[in-house]
Amino acid sequence: MGKKLFWIAGLFFSVNLQAQTTDEVLIRKIADEILVNSKAYENLRTLTKTIGGRLAGSPQMYQAEEWGYRLLKESGSENTVKQECMVPHWVRGGTDQATALLTNGKKKELDILALGNTEGTGSGGIKAPVILINSFEELEAKKDQLKGKIVFYNYHFNPRFIRTFEAYGDAVKYRTRGTSLAAKYGALASMVRSMSHSVDNNPHTGGTHYDTAYKKIPAVAIGLQDADWLAATLSKGDPIIISLRTMGHFLPDAKGHNIIGELKGSEFPNEIITIGGHLDSWDICEGAHDDGAGITQTIEILRAYKAIGYKPKRTIRFVLFANEENGARGGIQYADEAAKNRNETHLLALESDAGGFTPRGFGVTCNDAQFAKLKSWSPLLEPYGAGQFTRGGGGTDVLFIHEKLKVPMGELLPDSQRYFDIHHARSDVFEAVNKRELELGAVNLAALIYLVDQYGF
Amino acid sequence: MGKKLFWIAGLFFSVNLQAQTTDEVLIRKIADEILVNSKAYENLRTLTKTIGGRLAGSPQMYQAEEWGYRLLKESGSENTVKQECMVPHWVRGGTDQATALLTNGKKKELDILALGNTEGTGSGGIKAPVILINSFEELEAKKDQLKGKIVFYNYHFNPRFIRTFEAYGDAVKYRTRGTSLAAKYGALASMVRSMSHSVDNNPHTGGTHYDTAYKKIPAVAIGLQDADWLAATLSKGDPIIISLRTMGHFLPDAKGHNIIGELKGSEFPNEIITIGGHLDSWDICEGAHDDGAGITQTIEILRAYKAIGYKPKRTIRFVLFANEENGARGGIQYADEAAKNRNETHLLALESDAGGFTPRGFGVTCNDAQFAKLKSWSPLLEPYGAGQFTRGGGGTDVLFIHEKLKVPMGELLPDSQRYFDIHHARSDVFEAVNKRELELGAVNLAALIYLVDQYGF
Repeated sequence: MGKKLFWIAGLFFSVNLQAQTTDEVLIRKIADEILVNSKAYENLRTLTKTIGGRLAGSPQMYQAEEWGYRLLKESGSENTVKQECMVPHWVRGGTDQATALLTNGKKKELDILALGNTEGTGSGGIKAPVILINSFEELEAKKDQLKGKIVFYNYHFNPRFIRTFEAYGDAVKYRTRGTSLAAKYGALASMVRSMSHSVDNNPHTGGTHYDTAYKKIPAVAIGLQDADWLAATLSKGDPIIISLRTMGHFLPDAKGHNIIGELKGSEFPNEIITIGGHLDSWDICEGAHDDGAGITQTIEILRAYKAIGYKPKRTIRFVLFANEENGARGGIQYADEAAKNRNETHLLALESDAGGFTPRGFGVTCNDAQFAKLKSWSPLLEPYGAGQFTRGGGGTDVLFIHEKLKVPMGELLPDSQRYFDIHHARSDVFEAVNKRELELGAVNLAALIYLVDQYGF
Repeated sequence: MGKKLFWIAGLFFSVNLQAQTTDEVLIRKIADEILVNSKAYENLRTLTKTIGGRLAGSPQMYQAEEWGYRLLKESGSENTVKQECMVPHWVRGGTDQATALLTNGKKKELDILALGNTEGTGSGGIKAPVILINSFEELEAKKDQLKGKIVFYNYHFNPRFIRTFEAYGDAVKYRTRGTSLAAKYGALASMVRSMSHSVDNNPHTGGTHYDTAYKKIPAVAIGLQDADWLAATLSKGDPIIISLRTMGHFLPDAKGHNIIGELKGSEFPNEIITIGGHLDSWDICEGAHDDGAGITQTIEILRAYKAIGYKPKRTIRFVLFANEENGARGGIQYADEAAKNRNETHLLALESDAGGFTPRGFGVTCNDAQFAKLKSWSPLLEPYGAGQFTRGGGGTDVLFIHEKLKVPMGELLPDSQRYFDIHHARSDVFEAVNKRELELGAVNLAALIYLVDQYGF
């Protein structure tokens, strides 16, 4: 793209200089501070490259807690606490292995990952024929053929959805409910096509749910290329036996913490605004987008407020939640503690947990009056990207305070196109995060929190 | 991000199924075809990985022309032509080299690239002291100190702009006009800080303009990390001599072509809608975003229309423009040919040349009635991402037909955050393009062209 850009740029520029009102000026000031001096990207580098994957109970979880606690203090937190909560301690226990054995004697290694919280196969592994199942309807139709088999769910992530979270919502039931449904009919293990439209072969893990009525069988996710090969081979009528070995198991619950920073309100200290992300991540990746992005944005907002000397009227809590991925104990604990402290009123609990991509808007679960208020702020956020407010939304970490205390909850909604390329996969690494996109998320969150702080909610 | 997503997804899903009108249904059909069966991403792989950089006049330009011609035919073009235009043939002539020589005897290799269309230093290179210049104001103030020096323009790409094209428009004058302004005061060469906010050290090339009143001196772009080092060292008062060698020069103009495909209009065959991108790219990269994306989107729109059996009322031209980067001869030729053919009316000339990122909207230069029409279509495009219409916009390739025949011109406006990380740099490679984002650009372009075809403009 060449010279023609200059005058296009000129047009935008002339638009950009019209900021006038106090709110516009202050939000501009926040944006400038973050876009020029942000530490979010370098903080994310440390979290992902020095600490890395940090599943609940792991040594990296404790390193991340220490890192977050220190960083909140350094960033200007006036009251920094570690809020204890017991967290599940699931370990992968070794390298997940799956080998496809064909009748012609050929073998093929499959790229798989055990799903979080699953029981392993035992060190001997299991060896069983695999059966292709494309949907739960097909599962029911073939329920008499599943005994002693490995069920391979090949339900595709639907590319027709424009918002990729819709495709996830549509497909993820095969990961969460598929395991026990397979066990119900006597299957020995479940193998699910990864919830992704990526162009690589990385398997995407995530939690599964064991229905206590049935046996806890091993469950794994398989990469898309291997899933396509498996489906094609089985569709040709060539039987395949899979040799599967996973070693997942639980250790006793561990003592984890929500790490909480705070800016005390000058006028309404008992009115609380919460912003947060989750500090834990899956063990097999760096947890850069999920949710190192939300964590470093949360800390950056605090840093930026202090840097520009902003003194909030209300109390703002910056929460690094524990154990979102495989237990949500951090979110539950935060809600329980809030419930005990009845002299505090929580106005809004916000989170950033949809990746560090260019912000588009916010999804907020609130009443009509509150939503009208948000809509009225749209023109203030539009110049920074996140002016689109939609009803409904929140996230695992703020869901419990919402349910327990009826606190309005919301979430930053970034562009979703790249999220499921890397979600819960080895490819969720620092290099997948763009500095500007990460910073713009912090800008829009900081702007919305500023408005809630100024005008209440 | 965990379980909480399902019901958010549910909300979006319910929204998504409300498509009712003929236009909504047809646009949904176009989107499904592209999102499920698109060939854009694999075509881009071939263009970037098999052919690669393809500057005007290069062997790769001819390979790209043949590839594009064949692909347009295969994709269903009813009338495919090669529109001849002579193009400048600039060659880099070798590896660009710059070594910083410090007074303490130490040396440092600097990562630079000669700017397009520049004269080289000659094989012997030049060796001269470098002078730090942060702005044109500083250049004027120090004009008496520039003789025999290498001028290092260190003007920074301004991160405060939310739309990165504004930062480009603000900074790029140092690349386009800085060379001759330095020559005016007797400088031997110009070295400009790359027009980028990338986190790497890749220099970003691009065209420069020689004012014929002054000597044509060599001009190069330097990577940001080296630029920072150079500025810091010079600011400390440590003199630096730079040994510079570039071999750029022009060969005689070459015979190039715009490659044009067509779908003939069934009702108004003489009313023309143009969509295009540019087939050429800088020599030092794969030209994936700039503008392999626009090229493969243009071809994908044609393929998708044919695949769903859409028969346009008006004639749609799919143009792979020649020589956008260092001459714009393709755009000029297209305008000249259109001017000759007076029985044709051009309704709108659209281009995609801002990268294959998630679409946000369109910038269109048109009259009030036309803009009102566009605005009325916004709800139809919003679900696919590009519902934001802004006034003003177009691009090098459609600028000339706009100026010559007063044809309304416009451009797809994708998210701009990552564009200047890779623009005109080695990092503009296939791997920097996301499949979904590329496809969504094609979806929104195809939808807008459909509406213009149905209702005129």
